[in-house]
Amino acid sequence: MLPGIGLFGTGDIVRALVPFLRAKGFRVEAIWGRTLEAAENVASDLSIPFYTNKVDDVLLRKDVDLVFIICQPDLHAQIAVKALGIGKHVLCDRPAGLCQVEVLKMVHASQYYPSLISVISHGLRFLPAFVNMKKYIKSGYVGTVNVCDVRVQCGSMIGNQFDWMCSHLMGGGILSMLGSHIIDIVSFVTGQRAVRVHGMMRTFTKSTNSINGIRWIDSDDFCSFQMVLDGNACVTVTLNSHIPSTFVQEVVICGSKGRLSVRGSTLYGQTNDAKKEELLHEDSEEVGGHINNGNGNGRINSLLPQPYLHGLFRMVGALKEAFATGDGEHGWLKEPVSSAATFEDGQYVQAVIDTIKLSSSSRQWEQSFIHWMQAFQFKWLSFLVLQFVKDS
Amino acid sequence: MLPGIGLFGTGDIVRALVPFLRAKGFRVEAIWGRTLEAAENVASDLSIPFYTNKVDDVLLRKDVDLVFIICQPDLHAQIAVKALGIGKHVLCDRPAGLCQVEVLKMVHASQYYPSLISVISHGLRFLPAFVNMKKYIKSGYVGTVNVCDVRVQCGSMIGNQFDWMCSHLMGGGILSMLGSHIIDIVSFVTGQRAVRVHGMMRTFTKSTNSINGIRWIDSDDFCSFQMVLDGNACVTVTLNSHIPSTFVQEVVICGSKGRLSVRGSTLYGQTNDAKKEELLHEDSEEVGGHINNGNGNGRINSLLPQPYLHGLFRMVGALKEAFATGDGEHGWLKEPVSSAATFEDGQYVQAVIDTIKLSSSSRQWEQSFIHWMQAFQFKWLSFLVLQFVKDS
Repeated sequence: MLPGIGLFGTGDIVRALVPFLRAKGFRVEAIWGRTLEAAENVASDLSIPFYTNKVDDVLLRKDVDLVFIICQPDLHAQIAVKALGIGKHVLCDRPAGLCQVEVLKMVHASQYYPSLISVISHGLRFLPAFVNMKKYIKSGYVGTVNVCDVRVQCGSMIGNQFDWMCSHLMGGGILSMLGSHIIDIVSFVTGQRAVRVHGMMRTFTKSTNSINGIRWIDSDDFCSFQMVLDGNACVTVTLNSHIPSTFVQEVVICGSKGRLSVRGSTLYGQTNDAKKEELLHEDSEEVGGHINNGNGNGRINSLLPQPYLHGLFRMVGALKEAFATGDGEHGWLKEPVSSAATFEDGQYVQAVIDTIKLSSSSRQWEQSFIHWMQAFQFKWLSFLVLQFVKDS
Repeated sequence: MLPGIGLFGTGDIVRALVPFLRAKGFRVEAIWGRTLEAAENVASDLSIPFYTNKVDDVLLRKDVDLVFIICQPDLHAQIAVKALGIGKHVLCDRPAGLCQVEVLKMVHASQYYPSLISVISHGLRFLPAFVNMKKYIKSGYVGTVNVCDVRVQCGSMIGNQFDWMCSHLMGGGILSMLGSHIIDIVSFVTGQRAVRVHGMMRTFTKSTNSINGIRWIDSDDFCSFQMVLDGNACVTVTLNSHIPSTFVQEVVICGSKGRLSVRGSTLYGQTNDAKKEELLHEDSEEVGGHINNGNGNGRINSLLPQPYLHGLFRMVGALKEAFATGDGEHGWLKEPVSSAATFEDGQYVQAVIDTIKLSSSSRQWEQSFIHWMQAFQFKWLSFLVLQFVKDS
């Protein structure tokens, strides 16, 4: 049987997601909002039976088995850790947390409860264009991966009111929102991870017509970053939210034998001998029928553009499959969600984001993975201590 | 009367240029090649009356008044300085020279002979799309310039034989060949210059089917660089020569009020209030009828792609206008070529290129303009010495 769902968050993405969850057969049992009013509004609009502004009230409900954490990033870690502790499956929005130390707590919790599903909502991994891109790279279509060139152009992510998206301390900014997906998908399709990182972040729009009081926008609206991967490939990414009413995303991977590009949700390829680019995969299945159910301020296109939303929907489909049969060791099948981003993947992404921020202020290349090492050491240390306790 | 022309170089660009020069009414009097054989070949193919492999033989000819230096970059400085000294006008291919010290000699020569035309072949400055982009930026269409995002994708620049293009010491590489144009055009349209620079350069293709002996390719085939301009705008540029049989160039400039993009030779724009992008300028006039006169190895598309060639042709048109009337203080009019890149502009571009190379090896941001200061100091020093000699 499909698990009941508890939602954390009241944003546009939640409004787009709920109808889709129901279409897939999930029951949405409860919703949490930062204020009771916000929770009540969304609950009545979407006919969700229970709403609250207390985290525990959702987590402790017996009819909630799977929680979707789609609220501001500074709350992700505490809700996720608590949820796993109470025995609930967790899907957490990107970025995993505010910084590596926070995400590390989530990683430890997920390692402690391996029988629970704990995934990050990097939906692009489920988008057929990227699934196929990974397959083609693995089959040697491009040869050795040399260059990865990514460009994302979109409109402003800032809404009409001052909220967490305006503050980099609360996890806002284009690097956290879209860059996190890009860092994850590059490592997913190439199978390589960043060893050195360089970044340049800027906030050009510090105020808008509606946000011009004592509080200013300080989250990044432009970011350009470069990574050297452990297989020696070079990645260059440009994230630009100064292109109103547009969403363009292109991921180009060039290798010694050819190249692959995903533009939007379509995969193109060309080997070096070929005269012309060929269409390798086009998304024919329409999964995003519910996208226009947002409250219409248009910001959802920047916050979660079509390819991301389609990916998220497909990820929900995979979650359904995992639960539907009820087989498997813990009442769910691992296979359908095996390619989802784990909390460890989330920590890798967070490590790179933290390093880009560091590099942007130090103005030099920085090595990522400092905390990775800590995570490993921590695990080894606990392992050794446990062995010691057992032996004595 | 139009001046007679002496050509330095025997490459594909020369073959494309000569018919166009003649169509504009110039007489091509002499050609120099690195070997007598190469010079003879091109001279007989294009019916040029005189060919040689000695620089002076071209420069000392009385019927040559304007020299086009379109050969390998390590020879640019010595030919340009000598030509100006003998009293010939000079158009020099990009990059101006191998390094700033070399270009500084050219700058001094051009300052010493202000009655002679001395320009760098940054033809994009004459392309109507960029001329209009500059006008729109000046008129406030985009407001304050914040972000400039440039992407160039093309096929390999390496030919069938080992030549200077394969060696970064001799001035080869995508940064020198295409990056130089981009650095120049960004500063031309925005009116801003780089103060800090970061770059990442790579050579992924170290050998090809025909170049695989004891000599290896070490010129860069991928380069990503970032600049912070003196008006605080951020520039990010990706140059990628791993996209065979393609040439894509897009220059996007985003400001506080809107944006402008040049794709190929066409200018688009959108203000922040507008719902849709508008076409601002399309190149209707066909100036490049002679482009296919190359020797057919297709490399000209990477070495001097269509927008660059069109720009160069328009620049030749401007040179014709400058000479045609024969008015002006020195027998030519300054106005038609007033927007051309001077040797000082060439030195700025060279300063940025040198700094990108430095940054790529130091892995941190570097300040450009060190030699600029030297140039200024040198001028002031000479001025003071001259004053002192006069007075005493």
